[in-house]
Amino acid sequence: MQTETRKLLTVICEAQLESHVIADLERLGARGYTVTDARGKGGRGVRNAGWDRSANVRIEIVCDDKTANALAAHLRDHYYDHYAMILFISDVEVLRAGKF
Amino acid sequence: MQTETRKLLTVICEAQLESHVIADLERLGARGYTVTDARGKGGRGVRNAGWDRSANVRIEIVCDDKTANALAAHLRDHYYDHYAMILFISDVEVLRAGKF
Amino acid sequence: MQTETRKLLTVICEAQLESHVIADLERLGARGYTVTDARGKGGRGVRNAGWDRSANVRIEIVCDDKTANALAAHLRDHYYDHYAMILFISDVEVLRAGKF
Repeated sequence: MQTETRKLLTVICEAQLESHVIADLERLGARGYTVTDARGKGGRGVRNAGWDRSANVRIEIVCDDKTANALAAHLRDHYYDHYAMILFISDVEVLRAGKF
Repeated sequence: MQTETRKLLTVICEAQLESHVIADLERLGARGYTVTDARGKGGRGVRNAGWDRSANVRIEIVCDDKTANALAAHLRDHYYDHYAMILFISDVEVLRAGKF
Repeated sequence: MQTETRKLLTVICEAQLESHVIADLERLGARGYTVTDARGKGGRGVRNAGWDRSANVRIEIVCDDKTANALAAHLRDHYYDHYAMILFISDVEVLRAGKF
């Protein structure tokens, strides 16, 4: 079976950021995304080092390496210092890579 | 800690396909699966190239390499052209590999 | 873009275990976690080899290698034989590794 490697970028952040982050992702070249509602605890960047168990969203984007880097750099620069957000990137194999 | 490598197959598709896809997965050898409700946007295959923000499900299966390939090929052949579906495969380490 | 490698530990288990597992994760060093509600089918360990389609949770933790191993070993030793639980570990790239 023929597959190609793409990047899976997973962003977990406060639910209230969803529309902002989605708009950024689309503007920066993501061709699709998947959102699931989540809850959790984690550090809140420099604004609040404490723990917060609250409404989060988990946003996934499969894209090429260049787009993943651009999205991650943008999110880091615009949200990491002021909002509860983490992101991580992994390699995935996809079919019909033209979809991404 | 002893681990073994398996494949994690993630399928994201229209929510209305859930029961069909699950039946296919079981018939083709998946020993378990996890479903979460999701929403998202993405291409709709050849039937509709536009964007659709709607009810999706995210289905995960951990299985051996051969099963992952068989499941992915089946889903590609039966759904990719006519439904909003993406799938991606990654390597994961598991404990007690006999569970999968 | 500078990234560092961490482990993503994903635990899928019966929803009723959530508070117990979360307490264990925090005690053993997890600095954050994300929970999503899920449903699924799978083997139930030795207590019940049959299938069960029921309320599950999907818990994700990004952490260093040592913590991932400690968490996985603990969960295996305390839950695997008696509850419906699977876990898998993969490599992910993160920004600002100090968050994890």
